[in-house]
Amino acid sequence: MSRFLRVIPVKEAVASLLSVARDPGQETVRLAEAPQRILEGDIIATHDMPGFTRSTVDGYAVISSDTAGAGESLPSMITCTGRVEMGSSDPGVILPGECRYVPTGGMVPDGADAVVMIEYTETAGDQVLVMKPAASGENVVAPDEDFRAGEVILRSGAMILPQEAGVLAAAGVMTVTVRRIPRIAVIATGNELVPPTADPLPGQVRDVNSIVCEAFIRQCGCIPIPCGIVLDDTESLASAIIEAVSFSDAVFISGGSSKDERDATAAVIADLGRVLVHGIAISPGKPTIIGEISNCPVIGLPGHPSSAFIVLRAITAPLLEAMSGTSNPVMTCTSTLDSVIPSAKGREDYVRVRVTGDTATPLFSKSGLLHTLVQSDGYVLVPAESEGYEAGSEVEVILW
Amino acid sequence: MSRFLRVIPVKEAVASLLSVARDPGQETVRLAEAPQRILEGDIIATHDMPGFTRSTVDGYAVISSDTAGAGESLPSMITCTGRVEMGSSDPGVILPGECRYVPTGGMVPDGADAVVMIEYTETAGDQVLVMKPAASGENVVAPDEDFRAGEVILRSGAMILPQEAGVLAAAGVMTVTVRRIPRIAVIATGNELVPPTADPLPGQVRDVNSIVCEAFIRQCGCIPIPCGIVLDDTESLASAIIEAVSFSDAVFISGGSSKDERDATAAVIADLGRVLVHGIAISPGKPTIIGEISNCPVIGLPGHPSSAFIVLRAITAPLLEAMSGTSNPVMTCTSTLDSVIPSAKGREDYVRVRVTGDTATPLFSKSGLLHTLVQSDGYVLVPAESEGYEAGSEVEVILW
Repeated sequence: MSRFLRVIPVKEAVASLLSVARDPGQETVRLAEAPQRILEGDIIATHDMPGFTRSTVDGYAVISSDTAGAGESLPSMITCTGRVEMGSSDPGVILPGECRYVPTGGMVPDGADAVVMIEYTETAGDQVLVMKPAASGENVVAPDEDFRAGEVILRSGAMILPQEAGVLAAAGVMTVTVRRIPRIAVIATGNELVPPTADPLPGQVRDVNSIVCEAFIRQCGCIPIPCGIVLDDTESLASAIIEAVSFSDAVFISGGSSKDERDATAAVIADLGRVLVHGIAISPGKPTIIGEISNCPVIGLPGHPSSAFIVLRAITAPLLEAMSGTSNPVMTCTSTLDSVIPSAKGREDYVRVRVTGDTATPLFSKSGLLHTLVQSDGYVLVPAESEGYEAGSEVEVILW
Repeated sequence: MSRFLRVIPVKEAVASLLSVARDPGQETVRLAEAPQRILEGDIIATHDMPGFTRSTVDGYAVISSDTAGAGESLPSMITCTGRVEMGSSDPGVILPGECRYVPTGGMVPDGADAVVMIEYTETAGDQVLVMKPAASGENVVAPDEDFRAGEVILRSGAMILPQEAGVLAAAGVMTVTVRRIPRIAVIATGNELVPPTADPLPGQVRDVNSIVCEAFIRQCGCIPIPCGIVLDDTESLASAIIEAVSFSDAVFISGGSSKDERDATAAVIADLGRVLVHGIAISPGKPTIIGEISNCPVIGLPGHPSSAFIVLRAITAPLLEAMSGTSNPVMTCTSTLDSVIPSAKGREDYVRVRVTGDTATPLFSKSGLLHTLVQSDGYVLVPAESEGYEAGSEVEVILW
């Protein structure tokens, strides 16, 4: 393989990765687990809702014609025959000249066609004085006024937000078919890596990328499947990838940091499937690999954690969000640079910055160091056609 | 109690609720569970990181003075004594006139003080021709260059994002003390309510508010504790609230829809603790109750699901986010109203709207109906001092 990568623009790399996104399929879950999931298939009302004639106010259920002409000076006198209790299924019947107290949400008795708000009434013994005429249907909800049997309540593809879950509960829908949550395998490779639990010897480093990937995958609405650290030889890597492809919807390999290791990863992917991209015009993150094995997208991330993190944000987030159906809103702020950001034309530069008040300070460091990741508040994106920004420029900071 | 509520502005209601917010305390979790949590206490590096002298490139570790004056026309000839393997703790020693191949991230041998990128070298047998002089320290990371032992890695109060989790892994921090996730009890009350699993008789309705509250609480980074449906009498309600206060950081009561039921809830809260607010200048949602029992905030939500949902968004979200330390970014769009939104002065109106292209259509319905909740994309907020918006007005829609 050539020493120099054939790099492609970020936009093309993302499009290439999205072209191999796979449908994670469906599963049926309890309603309590449905919020934040994507509905698969329309939900149809099986019965009228609310299913009975309901009062929208505290007041008296009346026959509206009994209140015709009522006013403060000449109220209608109507005989109260009692009180409808909340939840009662037997509110009785109203005959002409009669009314019955109904609380908000209570069932309106047969015969009545309106409810007079209590604010417009006075009582004298069992007589109710109505000061205002009621129109037929006033303060009353018809049995099918919320949803009619057969009506679509929620459309396929909708995200089930809290209010949608409530409507499903109202309709008695206790299990919901939703999009499966994509499962993303995370493989770390590199002979220098030890698990974070270990005390590294000189020359060894703890595996940082696995936990960054796992947390990021979760943030994008997917389930990470940690696959541990794999030795950096072709056989170990190939068998780990074959296994990961068999049970996941995408495979992230946080590759070694040296060129030899990256080439080994690309060779294994090419051998098992195909390599779509090897090299992206992005800094940091240039040696990223995008491939596909058995209809499963496989991404080879750079070994340096800070590079891997930028690639997660810029390249893989669109894949994860497309597969999970979620989206992380991007938060930004406008700041003034306090020093220059130089950038080479032809690549997108993701420059980490710290934000203090209205000021953004670029944080540069040697590659492979971690501290800029936790000391930065976000990054400034320098487009491929730009040569950077002067000190004093106003820039948009994309916050972590 | 008076029939008419003493209403207070939304801002005051939120401030009142925040004034009784309680600290959920701390817990220690495994690093894998730490992402998205709030760090309690500074994290200090216990050792230098990376802990050894590391190469940032693929190249040859050299003594920089051996490359003085090197150029393409007159390269320095240096004897290659071998190759440092990734992860090797014994990279050997470099003597004057010697160099050794080091991959990116590999350990730099003792004696060497720089690494020459492979791009600036050629090999001839065991001789390496260096075409460019290396400065001392070039392409090399010092053992304490990322973090020094004793240095603060992460400050107390930081949200642990994926990259922070990575740095904790690098530092070997396997358990993290974080803010406890607030637990919010959810009580439904109303004699008309049946569980969503039941077939309601006429006059009964399925409990919608519990699942809306539970999903919303989760969205705000808290853990909902479902407490079921409680009969609408003082004793049942009081004992349910006493129990809920004992194990939770806040109690949400989705109260009955009638005035009598709401007054009963307020009376029980007043009896067990104190009522801070009963009545907010918000529509829908006016009969909301804010109280405190044994240092635990207690909120009485309106009975109508659509009113309860608006109160969850407008009043309780700031409490949940303050206690959990998370924040849900507010997404908005600018739209043109296709019909008038009338509003009474003196209250904030939350008018649900459907958004189609650039147009927002206000959705009005009788109180207690659910369909506007799932047919709307968000709401337009009419401030207390406004009398509404004309058709054709440009408005900001706050999306769900």
